[in-house]
Amino acid sequence: MMKPRTLSGFMELLPAPQQQMERVMDILRRTYSLYGFTPLDTPIIEDAQILLAKGGGETEKQIYRFTKGDSDLALRFDLTVPLAKYVALNYGQLTFPFRRYQIGKVYRGERAQRGRFREFYQADIDIIGDGALDIVNEAEIPSIICRTFTALGLERFQIRVNNRKILNGFYAMLGLAERSQDVMRTVDKLDKIGPEKVKACLMEDCGVSPEAADEILAFIAIRGSNDEVLAALEQYRGRNETFDAGLEELRAVTRHLAAFGVPEEKFAVDLTIARGLDYYTGTVYETTLLDHPEIGSVCSGGRYDNLAEYYTNKQLPGVGISIGLTRLFYVLGEQGMLNPDLPCAPADVLLLPMTDDLGDAIAVATALREAGIRTQLYTEKKKFKAKMAYADKLRIPYVIFLGEDEIAARVVKWKSLATGEQTSAPLEEAIDAIRAGLAAANAGKPIRD
Amino acid sequence: MMKPRTLSGFMELLPAPQQQMERVMDILRRTYSLYGFTPLDTPIIEDAQILLAKGGGETEKQIYRFTKGDSDLALRFDLTVPLAKYVALNYGQLTFPFRRYQIGKVYRGERAQRGRFREFYQADIDIIGDGALDIVNEAEIPSIICRTFTALGLERFQIRVNNRKILNGFYAMLGLAERSQDVMRTVDKLDKIGPEKVKACLMEDCGVSPEAADEILAFIAIRGSNDEVLAALEQYRGRNETFDAGLEELRAVTRHLAAFGVPEEKFAVDLTIARGLDYYTGTVYETTLLDHPEIGSVCSGGRYDNLAEYYTNKQLPGVGISIGLTRLFYVLGEQGMLNPDLPCAPADVLLLPMTDDLGDAIAVATALREAGIRTQLYTEKKKFKAKMAYADKLRIPYVIFLGEDEIAARVVKWKSLATGEQTSAPLEEAIDAIRAGLAAANAGKPIRD
Repeated sequence: MMKPRTLSGFMELLPAPQQQMERVMDILRRTYSLYGFTPLDTPIIEDAQILLAKGGGETEKQIYRFTKGDSDLALRFDLTVPLAKYVALNYGQLTFPFRRYQIGKVYRGERAQRGRFREFYQADIDIIGDGALDIVNEAEIPSIICRTFTALGLERFQIRVNNRKILNGFYAMLGLAERSQDVMRTVDKLDKIGPEKVKACLMEDCGVSPEAADEILAFIAIRGSNDEVLAALEQYRGRNETFDAGLEELRAVTRHLAAFGVPEEKFAVDLTIARGLDYYTGTVYETTLLDHPEIGSVCSGGRYDNLAEYYTNKQLPGVGISIGLTRLFYVLGEQGMLNPDLPCAPADVLLLPMTDDLGDAIAVATALREAGIRTQLYTEKKKFKAKMAYADKLRIPYVIFLGEDEIAARVVKWKSLATGEQTSAPLEEAIDAIRAGLAAANAGKPIRD
Repeated sequence: MMKPRTLSGFMELLPAPQQQMERVMDILRRTYSLYGFTPLDTPIIEDAQILLAKGGGETEKQIYRFTKGDSDLALRFDLTVPLAKYVALNYGQLTFPFRRYQIGKVYRGERAQRGRFREFYQADIDIIGDGALDIVNEAEIPSIICRTFTALGLERFQIRVNNRKILNGFYAMLGLAERSQDVMRTVDKLDKIGPEKVKACLMEDCGVSPEAADEILAFIAIRGSNDEVLAALEQYRGRNETFDAGLEELRAVTRHLAAFGVPEEKFAVDLTIARGLDYYTGTVYETTLLDHPEIGSVCSGGRYDNLAEYYTNKQLPGVGISIGLTRLFYVLGEQGMLNPDLPCAPADVLLLPMTDDLGDAIAVATALREAGIRTQLYTEKKKFKAKMAYADKLRIPYVIFLGEDEIAARVVKWKSLATGEQTSAPLEEAIDAIRAGLAAANAGKPIRD
């Protein structure tokens, strides 16, 4: 016999939290669908050469790579590379702009650590254009993030947006175009090491003059409402074409926030955000939980110019965001933010037959299921107390009893375990009452913020 | 640049068929839930030693097994072994009977062949008892199969049921208890090689006497309605305890079919069914598509006495069934049985703004999404004809136009691409009309039988 265990770094939930996770996924699927994204499901295993066509850098060490027969295989480490492959492969059969969502597991052999996962869900959306992609697609992304997080029950979050062209243009103004990557990498440490040290690093490591370093610090210190930040950026207009283009894009992304249903306070232009230095080329997004800045961004992404350059000559610009779902779910659980009041039971009704012949009880179970009520027929040979304990432990909200008396009177007797209330009535009434009770119990959102 | 490809044996669907697959999965999830099964999600990678504790036989050669660092890892090849591990590992935190469903990918490195998959979905349900499990759980399984397949749209299917105790008891009567495995393996070939050759094999390979061979052929030739088969089996009662117990179980499984909502013609006692010779111990199930017997069973399972014997001393009897979803979906597609009339578009509405300012169009898109209508805002710089072609290609059912006139009159103009009909009315009316149209279009089932 062998001691069972689950590999460390692999999330495996008990039934009740799994129900919460399913609810979260369901909301993601529904919200993404509302914006016209179609679901995709690509293999978890890909040809390693193809998956790693770009060359992996940091990621490559973490890849699960192995051979089977003559095949050099690897597990996907994100959903973007498989999307690039898919779009290049099926280019002729897709219609552009191509909007897809994918919620799937990805694999990275990170060092085992509490809250770090080697198998985890990403929940991605991307919009891919053929040659060109209108800026309104970028403007729509905050609306999707906002609706998704609101539907999950989050309230205290903020979508932070910047534009890489503004950054690149700004650094070009200072004559730092060549060094902009190093400069941005240094500026990225602002939160961690503070402005003095950033200035020192800029001068020592990046060779920036003291004046330019001050300009950089002043620039990324621009704060305020969206209008205030945009107004401050106007001061720089006219000095660099890339900057001006970025500012136009940022204006386009902020212009229709209200029409898109994004409340002003959920959105902030934030010049410190750069993200994936060599990948994104325009708008970039991060989403933070205001009360949990230590988590970092829980939904990030941006605009890129060329999705599938390693697989096709076609120019395929796009914009996308990704939620690290497993980590988010884990953190929300740790923070006590998963709503414990939502039903997580495997069934809505536990049906207890009180007669030897089970025909009537089975017919009632069938009718309940017909009515969409999740019903478990319980026929184990146990004492009444044990049967009720079963419902209690699983937090099944209703128990229906069916004895000789009920069958004779053509009624069912049901008990709400929440209120303790017991009622006898014809099945149709029971169904209506239970449905109403379930609707009320299910009205909440999976996250309590 | 690298030519993109997807590994052979790995299903990767285009958007429209993927929508059909999603619909099928949704129905499975919903139907399984109606019977009180809770969803589980276990890792795809497990410790190889644990996954292969049982020793793999045929399967072992097909396993994807590899090392990462010091870890000996393997991809799951079914959902039953991970369930056994899960139940043994979490025994103290689960409530029994434990009912779970799992729809997940499993991996087998089979020889590449058309219609054979190396990565495929299984859709499993299992009911696990702690020490004991009431026979009614076994009786309920045909109801679950029937409701699931009916919900999918299948009509011409039959659930075939047998009981291993009847077979074992019968062979014991003939003094063939020791050789029953060999005998059953031979009898299993009946469909392929015919009765004469089976008889010859029984005598030559299994050492069965001619009289016993005739008895075996007569036994498995028992045919007729459920009542007729049960009556024929009564003739054997009293000669062997195991047989009698099996007959009682079979009677219990057939007794309440009507109350369980299973039409008589969808169910047949079939004494030729044995399945997994060393695993199942009681009721066994197969499900065949009447017009496609060549496919074999599309949903199989049975009762077992000890789920997790390799991981725990606890006696955990259970009953379960499995649908090989990827293969079923593939075969249904090949047979032209996927309903082409169901909407597979990524959106319900394509919204075409006809003004330079997009504020009103965006507000309409937001209102449509608020109303649960999947809406894509289309703002690419294309000619009108190209925009309509986009809706056509993707088979988006409605296009909404919003021009100066509509905005001034506070209406929207929408066109049904199915009927060509164009209407102008206030947004609320459009929402009602579109909702009604979508409900009608979505009323069908994913499979057309």
